[in-house]
Amino acid sequence: MEILVIGIGAGDPDQLTMQGVRAIERADVFFVLDKGEVKQELVELRTEILQRYAPGAKVVVGRDPERDRGSAAYVESVDDWRRRRADVCAGMIERELSGDQVGAFLVWGDPSLYDSTLAILDDLLARGELDFGIEVIPGISSVSALAAKHRIGLNQVGKPIQITTGRRLAKEWPEGVDDVVVMLDAQTAFTAHTDQDADIFWGAYLGTPDELLVAGKLSEVAGEIEKIRAEARERKGWIMDTYLLRRGHR
Amino acid sequence: MEILVIGIGAGDPDQLTMQGVRAIERADVFFVLDKGEVKQELVELRTEILQRYAPGAKVVVGRDPERDRGSAAYVESVDDWRRRRADVCAGMIERELSGDQVGAFLVWGDPSLYDSTLAILDDLLARGELDFGIEVIPGISSVSALAAKHRIGLNQVGKPIQITTGRRLAKEWPEGVDDVVVMLDAQTAFTAHTDQDADIFWGAYLGTPDELLVAGKLSEVAGEIEKIRAEARERKGWIMDTYLLRRGHR
Ligand SMILES: C[S@@+](CC[C@H](N)C(=O)[O-])C[C@H]1O[C@@H](n2cnc3c(N)ncnc32)[C@H](O)[C@@H]1O
Ligand SMILES: C[S@@+](CC[C@H](N)C(=O)[O-])C[C@H]1O[C@@H](n2cnc3c(N)ncnc32)[C@H](O)[C@@H]1O
Repeated sequence: MEILVIGIGAGDPDQLTMQGVRAIERADVFFVLDKGEVKQELVELRTEILQRYAPGAKVVVGRDPERDRGSAAYVESVDDWRRRRADVCAGMIERELSGDQVGAFLVWGDPSLYDSTLAILDDLLARGELDFGIEVIPGISSVSALAAKHRIGLNQVGKPIQITTGRRLAKEWPEGVDDVVVMLDAQTAFTAHTDQDADIFWGAYLGTPDELLVAGKLSEVAGEIEKIRAEARERKGWIMDTYLLRRGHR
Repeated sequence: MEILVIGIGAGDPDQLTMQGVRAIERADVFFVLDKGEVKQELVELRTEILQRYAPGAKVVVGRDPERDRGSAAYVESVDDWRRRRADVCAGMIERELSGDQVGAFLVWGDPSLYDSTLAILDDLLARGELDFGIEVIPGISSVSALAAKHRIGLNQVGKPIQITTGRRLAKEWPEGVDDVVVMLDAQTAFTAHTDQDADIFWGAYLGTPDELLVAGKLSEVAGEIEKIRAEARERKGWIMDTYLLRRGHR
């Protein structure tokens, strides 16, 4: 048995790679963890890609367990949630896959960035109940998509970049870096840094028809982004946004 | 006039996205900066991609000026080099492109990571001698390719990642991060950190037939990587490698 973990890009079906297309064509079964939420775009992207490259494919949907977001013990709650996800995945794989068959997970963006699919599969292998090979097909991340849409590099010449979460940025600007990419920001953490002489390059729903882009001096556009973000979130019921904060650009 | 900056992935022609294929089909002229070095793989990847998706395409090669690598004033030497590259590009665009035509640069990996093409084009527009639109097509970076081949995530749960250069890592382990991706390392900077309780995930010539992968405890495999790296470099005349250093993994 083999499991393919296929990065499908962050919103635009044309961000799929040729490698991704070939992997999709190889798969016998597609596994989907259904978040039970209304992130319609995610479902649509997956559906459109499967219709194009694997029409009639077998898709098995597992119910993604709820995560205890209120918990103060962040890492533990993620660990517990991950364990329950692993149970769901183990069930799907056991029931649906056998012998030489190939299963696939379609992963939003790039599987290497803030995604738990690989950790779940590692957990499954570590338990020793299931045995399968894993192949990972890299995808265009929302970070690359953000930079492309703003037509910018992520780094300044010879300098480092940090990729971090809204939760962390809310506490402090990270040490030792002027260029910070922020993901998983449910709290507009950039508003905590409007005292910095920084630029912001912000993007929401990147690659989808609802894409929103704002760029400018952080102190000047932070309020505008907050407003646009709140309106979009209200309208669609959810939001996914990413941004680069850039300090000290000559 | 329009210039497309197309990320073509970090070594494997199948890493090209559908978006990249379509962009290549749209371009009238392809601009290439010839490094005058023996990085045969780079030339081959470009050639293979053009043969597949734009056979018979017009390719214009500009001579990439030498960079003063010995200079202590790193940023200035890069700036000066970039200015001379801009002159070369301005010449190519002026001579080859007119009216509604579309030119394209094929960029190794993702255009947003340690690549100067966008900065050059911005310089050209800032000079005011030329006027053109820019569209960027994101590509699979060597960082995503590295993570995929090692089947790992770049971040630990909820934690940040830093992407930096060998030059910087040689001086110190960056503040505030346990996961560090290192690019542009001509000096095996990881050998300066074998006292750390860290893992290394190393890859060279990723996505090409010469791909090399080593993973393990940094203190245990650093010497092996040095040896493999030196041999490969000797054999091929050049090397491109990237790695993740991971500390504090439970
Ligand atoms: C769980 S992470 C998954 C990231 C994904 N693996 C990737 O490579 O982009 C989800 C976060 O990615 C970012 N994101 C993903 N898709 C996005 C999009 N289309 N537009 C803006 N941000 C996006 C947001 O910061 C969101 O909170
Ligand atoms: C000038 S930077 C360009 C990076 C490129 N834009 C990207 O997205 O990968 C060159 C550095 O990228 C890394 N690199 C690029 N291609 C690679 C490959 N196929 N294998 C390993 N490292 C690679 C190396 O660290 C190299 O020093």
